[in-house]
Amino acid sequence: MEIKQIPGGVCAAEGFLAAGVHAGIRRNKKKKDMALIYSEVPCSVAAVFTRNKVFGAPIIVTKRNIADGYARAIVCNSGNANTCNADGLEKAEMMCELAAKALSLREEDMIVASTGVIGLPLNIEPIASGLPMLVKEMRRDGGLDAAQGIMTTDTHPKERAIEFKLDGKTCHIGAICKGSGMIHPNMATMLCFVTSDVNIEPAVLQTALRTAVRDSFNMISVDGDTSTNDMVIVLANGEAQNTRITSEEDKDFAALAEALRTLLIEMSKLIAGDGEGCTKLIECHVTGVPHDQLARDIAKSIITSSLTKAAMFGSDANWGRVLCAIGYTEGDFRVDTIDVWFSSAKGRILVCEKGMGVDFSEEKAKEILLEPEICIEVAMNQGEAEATAWGCDLTYDYVRINGDYRT
Amino acid sequence: MEIKQIPGGVCAAEGFLAAGVHAGIRRNKKKKDMALIYSEVPCSVAAVFTRNKVFGAPIIVTKRNIADGYARAIVCNSGNANTCNADGLEKAEMMCELAAKALSLREEDMIVASTGVIGLPLNIEPIASGLPMLVKEMRRDGGLDAAQGIMTTDTHPKERAIEFKLDGKTCHIGAICKGSGMIHPNMATMLCFVTSDVNIEPAVLQTALRTAVRDSFNMISVDGDTSTNDMVIVLANGEAQNTRITSEEDKDFAALAEALRTLLIEMSKLIAGDGEGCTKLIECHVTGVPHDQLARDIAKSIITSSLTKAAMFGSDANWGRVLCAIGYTEGDFRVDTIDVWFSSAKGRILVCEKGMGVDFSEEKAKEILLEPEICIEVAMNQGEAEATAWGCDLTYDYVRINGDYRT
Repeated sequence: MEIKQIPGGVCAAEGFLAAGVHAGIRRNKKKKDMALIYSEVPCSVAAVFTRNKVFGAPIIVTKRNIADGYARAIVCNSGNANTCNADGLEKAEMMCELAAKALSLREEDMIVASTGVIGLPLNIEPIASGLPMLVKEMRRDGGLDAAQGIMTTDTHPKERAIEFKLDGKTCHIGAICKGSGMIHPNMATMLCFVTSDVNIEPAVLQTALRTAVRDSFNMISVDGDTSTNDMVIVLANGEAQNTRITSEEDKDFAALAEALRTLLIEMSKLIAGDGEGCTKLIECHVTGVPHDQLARDIAKSIITSSLTKAAMFGSDANWGRVLCAIGYTEGDFRVDTIDVWFSSAKGRILVCEKGMGVDFSEEKAKEILLEPEICIEVAMNQGEAEATAWGCDLTYDYVRINGDYRT
Repeated sequence: MEIKQIPGGVCAAEGFLAAGVHAGIRRNKKKKDMALIYSEVPCSVAAVFTRNKVFGAPIIVTKRNIADGYARAIVCNSGNANTCNADGLEKAEMMCELAAKALSLREEDMIVASTGVIGLPLNIEPIASGLPMLVKEMRRDGGLDAAQGIMTTDTHPKERAIEFKLDGKTCHIGAICKGSGMIHPNMATMLCFVTSDVNIEPAVLQTALRTAVRDSFNMISVDGDTSTNDMVIVLANGEAQNTRITSEEDKDFAALAEALRTLLIEMSKLIAGDGEGCTKLIECHVTGVPHDQLARDIAKSIITSSLTKAAMFGSDANWGRVLCAIGYTEGDFRVDTIDVWFSSAKGRILVCEKGMGVDFSEEKAKEILLEPEICIEVAMNQGEAEATAWGCDLTYDYVRINGDYRT
């Protein structure tokens, strides 16, 4: 199946409208702080949420509303996470109620999300005044505005869309997401809203989403901190008119799952590459591992190592830190068969063979590592499993951003 | 039992000599790069090593030499970890052989250690010329020189000593250690050499050491990276003339174990407080937890969180990040009973009660957090177990130091 990248985000799929506005939650009037995504018809919904035991009130409300497998719209604010507040649940319910009213929908068809500072009571006034603005603004080309409305410390809005065929019908999946701190494996730490015009049962969509998230969002790390609020939501409204996918055995399921996985990997890389303060995207590809889970654990261990991340910031080919991060991964494996390369658009260089250093040109290595997208390739030579993880470098700006986030 | 802090380090115990010299492993002639600790009589030895599967060649040699429970001397170089080198084992054995020869000891009585860059072949020339210098220099007041000889990015040498009585005899335990990157729970990431004049069986000393390490070095974190080379070694030469401790049931065992634990906690705090680039020591004390392991896990999770560490650098009372780090700790517990305080020499302030934010003076909180030693106090209110962990803030200098460590 051919999967074609197309311009746009959540409005790439038929039947979706979106908007983003400045409602006044943030002081800076140039920053949008609310987003709305709306489907003209009911959607099958699938979702995954943070596994952090401390989680935001909006997650409680959203879980309740999507329990029946269907939804129509997503409303999200940035600037305040509405988490760890005594009145959090009450405020999330009000936000849901206000949104349903403004859209003339039932409350049970609303998805609510919040992102920003933890533990600061959410002011409902700007939400109440922002909702009618959002409804008035929503349109077929409002996807980018919505992408802007959910940003926190992201340096740019993040949207992607793809087109593919199922059952002879042209289908679309589009998405927006935001990072960029508290990014760590275990489905957390970010928001990603995905829309599709594919016709599919909610339970089957959920299966496709779980697999896609395992290989995408659960394989990125910015700082090892698993956040409290984050979620991936997929809305599929069936407007593509394909024969409804009702089981994992259906002939189109695998194609849909692969399309969703492809898009979510793209979204994950957008988040990793825009991690707080980061200057480069680091991909880590591990091959030759005895089994899948270990392959994922090793790739994540490398991408999460502060020392490796700082070395990449300095474009320093300090491969010893990569080996060190492999070595403290839990599990049974040998270290005397490991080969390591650094690669980028500028070339590829072997730095470690059978667990030992090899002579290499520091000059060439530097040239490779100065690129904005680099890859750490690890061949374990002990099996058939492989995995890829994505992260970013650790920089002065990460410290600056997080040393005084609230002021 | 009274445990008295006394000046000094590894020479506080009777019968130990020490030295530190610049042998030429480092280019900077002002930096000592070799250390020697020597006992006039045979010592019972206990040791714990890194659990990283990638580990330095010196660890192989040392493990072999102490298998019989006895040793006489420790030789250590800084500036090169002798790890992941094809000729690593050969070089570590040569270092051992040269040291034994210079001291007229058997090779089996030598402990060897290396710390520094991974994957750079160790030049044996400076080791060979440094050893006779060390032997010539070693003396009863050479402890501080030895502490300097094992430093890498540490900003100051680290030594402590205590005095206590066992069986009517005055006993001593002294130690030197070094950090300061790759510091993370699971016995790793540092070197600590402990000497004592206590008379004790090796196996019993090992038991005391395991417990002490669990509550000290395994409760600190600088950056979450578990290093490849590190070890805690205790040498006990019996010169205090106390009745030999031969079992954990002996009346003096508990006192000795508590003395060792007390000193190792001090050493751990020295390392945490001098973490790479750090500006403050962060203690985290967690109480009211259902069981011990969970208490330790929660305390370590907080102390390891990059976001919490960056907030502490900015003296920002961002308690939401503390709650977030509690929330992603593995295990069964509730979050709606958690209280959190920040405290220091400037006072104590409640910032979160029953898992929710409370009104507090940001000004007062800032004053408290600007201190060089701060404490995050967490009351889980769900049981009787408690634990303390130590870490440091995440700073611009951590990034600077690690962005270009090798050059």
